Amino acid sequence: MYNFEYKNPVKIIFGKDSIPKVADEIPQHSKILMIYGGGSIKSNGVYQQVKDALQGFELHEFGGIEPNPHYETCMKAIEMVKYEKVDFLLSVGGGSVLDATKFIAAGALYGGQDPWDFMKHRYEIEVQEALPIGAVLTLPATGSEMNGTTVITRVSTQEKMAFGSPLVMPQFSILDPKCVFSLPDRQVANGFADAFVHVIEQYLTFPVNSPLQDRFAEGILLTLIEEGPKVLANRNDYDAAANFMWSATMALNGLIGAGVPQDWATHMIGHELTAFHGIDHARTLAIVLPGMMHIRRDSKKEKLLQYGERIWNIKQGSDDQRIDQAIQKTVEFFNSLGIPCTLPEYDVPKETIGKITERFKTRDSKLGENKDISYKEVETILEDRL
Amino acid sequence: MYNFEYKNPVKIIFGKDSIPKVADEIPQHSKILMIYGGGSIKSNGVYQQVKDALQGFELHEFGGIEPNPHYETCMKAIEMVKYEKVDFLLSVGGGSVLDATKFIAAGALYGGQDPWDFMKHRYEIEVQEALPIGAVLTLPATGSEMNGTTVITRVSTQEKMAFGSPLVMPQFSILDPKCVFSLPDRQVANGFADAFVHVIEQYLTFPVNSPLQDRFAEGILLTLIEEGPKVLANRNDYDAAANFMWSATMALNGLIGAGVPQDWATHMIGHELTAFHGIDHARTLAIVLPGMMHIRRDSKKEKLLQYGERIWNIKQGSDDQRIDQAIQKTVEFFNSLGIPCTLPEYDVPKETIGKITERFKTRDSKLGENKDISYKEVETILEDRL
Repeated sequence: MYNFEYKNPVKIIFGKDSIPKVADEIPQHSKILMIYGGGSIKSNGVYQQVKDALQGFELHEFGGIEPNPHYETCMKAIEMVKYEKVDFLLSVGGGSVLDATKFIAAGALYGGQDPWDFMKHRYEIEVQEALPIGAVLTLPATGSEMNGTTVITRVSTQEKMAFGSPLVMPQFSILDPKCVFSLPDRQVANGFADAFVHVIEQYLTFPVNSPLQDRFAEGILLTLIEEGPKVLANRNDYDAAANFMWSATMALNGLIGAGVPQDWATHMIGHELTAFHGIDHARTLAIVLPGMMHIRRDSKKEKLLQYGERIWNIKQGSDDQRIDQAIQKTVEFFNSLGIPCTLPEYDVPKETIGKITERFKTRDSKLGENKDISYKEVETILEDRL
Repeated sequence: MYNFEYKNPVKIIFGKDSIPKVADEIPQHSKILMIYGGGSIKSNGVYQQVKDALQGFELHEFGGIEPNPHYETCMKAIEMVKYEKVDFLLSVGGGSVLDATKFIAAGALYGGQDPWDFMKHRYEIEVQEALPIGAVLTLPATGSEMNGTTVITRVSTQEKMAFGSPLVMPQFSILDPKCVFSLPDRQVANGFADAFVHVIEQYLTFPVNSPLQDRFAEGILLTLIEEGPKVLANRNDYDAAANFMWSATMALNGLIGAGVPQDWATHMIGHELTAFHGIDHARTLAIVLPGMMHIRRDSKKEKLLQYGERIWNIKQGSDDQRIDQAIQKTVEFFNSLGIPCTLPEYDVPKETIGKITERFKTRDSKLGENKDISYKEVETILEDRL
């Protein structure tokens, strides 16, 4: 196991009918900006529950955060924060709304010219202060409710980039699994795929003798595989929804990644597919991951075999055959959720591969747990997905 | 899954040679009281590492905290805290030292007559403030390094009681697995048994459809079973020591118990064995647990069968046979650590059962996840251990 530091002070309030507790978690006399997305919270009743709970607070609203939230939209929210002198941000929605909220929280107090600096100069410019954030989570998927990471898309330049800071971790996150009841199939499927790949990025690397982290990671994968069909079959299955929601949170709150190598190359490549073609984040991961497993089968060999055996019960055949089976099982899992795993199924033309490869070449990026995936391997991985 | 709230802001600093980082975690100009036990930290070098790191701080010392730390000793430390106007407590040792530190932290700022009130009136009197605590953990076992619970023994009345408060959670805990290298067999064995039973108390109850919590709990149990023999065979196996240490922390930081029923009857009964006979805490658990499993085999049936299958690979036989095998395997595990599981092996006379039973009768306690273990069942459980 590697040395590590771990601290996660987010307060989780989990369970049915827990949304009204939001009022107890926000300091009295706060001037709140409630941030949300496209209005689904109005049709499913969450908007009204929050409004009812927060009577007595000065409450402003900013709606219209997109999936893969836009820098340009966040900048408008930052203007509103400054104008209204808001001092608490409440995200009501899924991971996109929360990611936007994190960017707004840090951007509103940034002393520099442009908060995009946090993305562009991620390793030079650190967040120094941020407005406090609370979250009412309506969609299990990104894990953003219990971490300090945000991913934002800049439309004008077709860039999708991330930054992280403990200062943008939510003070609290309210997780009511009943929010799952009103989700469309597509968002449920995306949530399962997203959480699944979050685990894989922290697990499918190389062994460092960390049996507990491995078992926690495998525990999340197995639970997602079990609960996925249940949630898709019956949206009102509370237990399945709750297990889905808690698994998605645990998939990316830092715990399973503490003390072990991490990959994240699938995410980095996937972000480019979203940037160029607007494909749902989770679906880009389902496209890239099988290629990553295939092309990196040597450097990931031991963990791929362990993954095959412990997750899919694959114990027969040569190493290569077992790895092929593990990849096949992974594809079948995504397909069973209704998520295709090849580029043509999303009408992505071959030329996109060149464009994406060029980006990684320009940035001179080295991805993966060994920092040895250059633009050439990116090209090979994407060609595998044609 | 039950509704739950979970918040654990303890900063974990984990890994080899991490002790000098203590200096970065304590606020400048702090007046520190370093609290420790019987002096093993002097022979293994930890004491000197901490002293070296904290040059420049005003550093006071209070040594001599006992295993099963005494209220009477803590009260002397509280006097010293007040006299020296200490404003930061640093625990350097195992769970007993840290538990004492927690009691001292709350007791020093208590407005009432006697901080024993926190134990005696646990559900009426809450801790309102406490001095900040840091920890350098030298012995994996109790999990005290990542929770807000403390257990203290009052010698004069032969009472061993607990209280909990988020205010006594450490600000940080430094976990250097190399501290395991100098531990005697007995402390290693106790650490494994203690962590094992902590998991069992949160796992071996009744099913509430919480597959992720179950798998995390099982992951800790399996890791403890794997790593136990390694640590006992080779005290300098760093990886085994690290996996032991991290497992013990995860066993009792609230995570696996979030959203599920909890038992703790084994602990409550075990505390009495320590109170009357001074038996090591972990060993009292190893005595009581097999009796608990046996006597509660009906109410715990589903989880006992799951435990048998997933932890010990027991799949054959009738339910009762499988449960018997699971109990047998548990006893064999404790025995393999060098820990006996019956009362006569500790020279506990039969009369002690009467005394302990009488205590639970007087208190009118109802223990266990169903709150249905009265003094009568306590008697039956202890008689099973003769």
